[in-house]
Amino acid sequence: MIGITDNKLQELGYPLDHCCFKPGMVQPAVVDGLTVYCSGAVPFDGDLLTHVGKVPSVVKPDDAYKAAALCAANCLRNARSVIGSLDRIERVLRVTGYVYSDADFSEQHLVINGASQLLSDLLGENGFHARTALGVAALPLGSSVEVEMILRLKHA
Amino acid sequence: MIGITDNKLQELGYPLDHCCFKPGMVQPAVVDGLTVYCSGAVPFDGDLLTHVGKVPSVVKPDDAYKAAALCAANCLRNARSVIGSLDRIERVLRVTGYVYSDADFSEQHLVINGASQLLSDLLGENGFHARTALGVAALPLGSSVEVEMILRLKHA
Amino acid sequence: MIGITDNKLQELGYPLDHCCFKPGMVQPAVVDGLTVYCSGAVPFDGDLLTHVGKVPSVVKPDDAYKAAALCAANCLRNARSVIGSLDRIERVLRVTGYVYSDADFSEQHLVINGASQLLSDLLGENGFHARTALGVAALPLGSSVEVEMILRLKHA
Repeated sequence: MIGITDNKLQELGYPLDHCCFKPGMVQPAVVDGLTVYCSGAVPFDGDLLTHVGKVPSVVKPDDAYKAAALCAANCLRNARSVIGSLDRIERVLRVTGYVYSDADFSEQHLVINGASQLLSDLLGENGFHARTALGVAALPLGSSVEVEMILRLKHA
Repeated sequence: MIGITDNKLQELGYPLDHCCFKPGMVQPAVVDGLTVYCSGAVPFDGDLLTHVGKVPSVVKPDDAYKAAALCAANCLRNARSVIGSLDRIERVLRVTGYVYSDADFSEQHLVINGASQLLSDLLGENGFHARTALGVAALPLGSSVEVEMILRLKHA
Repeated sequence: MIGITDNKLQELGYPLDHCCFKPGMVQPAVVDGLTVYCSGAVPFDGDLLTHVGKVPSVVKPDDAYKAAALCAANCLRNARSVIGSLDRIERVLRVTGYVYSDADFSEQHLVINGASQLLSDLLGENGFHARTALGVAALPLGSSVEVEMILRLKHA
């Protein structure tokens, strides 16, 4: 079943079938009651990791912004693979965004705005969230950005 | 209304009006039932970012300790802007502290003690918390420290 | 009392008495209802920090994998010091793993698999979890790895 929010994610440019994280000892997301912990997601578009390398020396901040949006979409696609439909989301609680940064780069918050904007575009005020934006020394697969989030589901 | 704990924060040197994070798609804090997720806070004193640059080459660990305390105070001020009064806090659950670190600096835990000490001074044993202290390659605005926390509220 | 899971942790090579984090303003773990927030743990074996330095230039990835497993065991030992027995764990919700990384190292996920594998070996599918693996510029005490986790307890 494809819900209204699922459909909206597609319209925003993130096809639902460009998914996902294969479940194993690391799960795409874990549901605890009405809380969903999404695993950290890197900017895969299907099998292709779209943004690799440090910001800004290798990947420009504007491109990293797009990578952050894709990471957020992947968190949602990962969540959907577990909860069935994004229509079940009541709100986004917290987002943590990591930017593979040159040591003198200090605009991680602007990069991670790419994730925040997508969540707001998709869910309106329910997409607003607490957030931490960080610069890190390295990320898995050399990814330029990684995003994780915690979601709250509606009561059944 | 200014509660007992609010007043105590002021007495500890953190005026309540030196606040806050403007709410938007990133919120100062998000309340989920009795859980409060505070956004990562950097050491702003009003509009002034007090500690910028790597620890210890640019900012001394003793100064970064003060920055960590200010970050914690800002998390609390951010939370208060959402929950109304710090008197509503039952306890601090978790603190994560990030230090903009030279690669050979290994005393992040001592720096983040600045945040932990403030929470203990303010809330006694209810300010005790689980914690992770980390060194990061870069932080937004070049900030020397960033702190985020999760709080538990009292039953209404 | 030593429960079945406590005993299994010992059999996997992690004696229960090689513990712990001394409680103070930073707690080994904090329980909030049925949720347990474990503090970040570094690879201490008793008093000895077993893995110090960057991965892979100082510590090889295979060794860092072992360090990650030890960190996870320490999170569990820390949790046990608060909850009494690991038999009380219903499941692992989320793991965050930090690797002290050279800037061009991109296999943090493989290192943190050491933690994930231990949790799976100990708890089976209940040890599966959401996860984020990160490379950081520095860690407390120069530790090569740090792991934190959130656990869910069984209803009493």
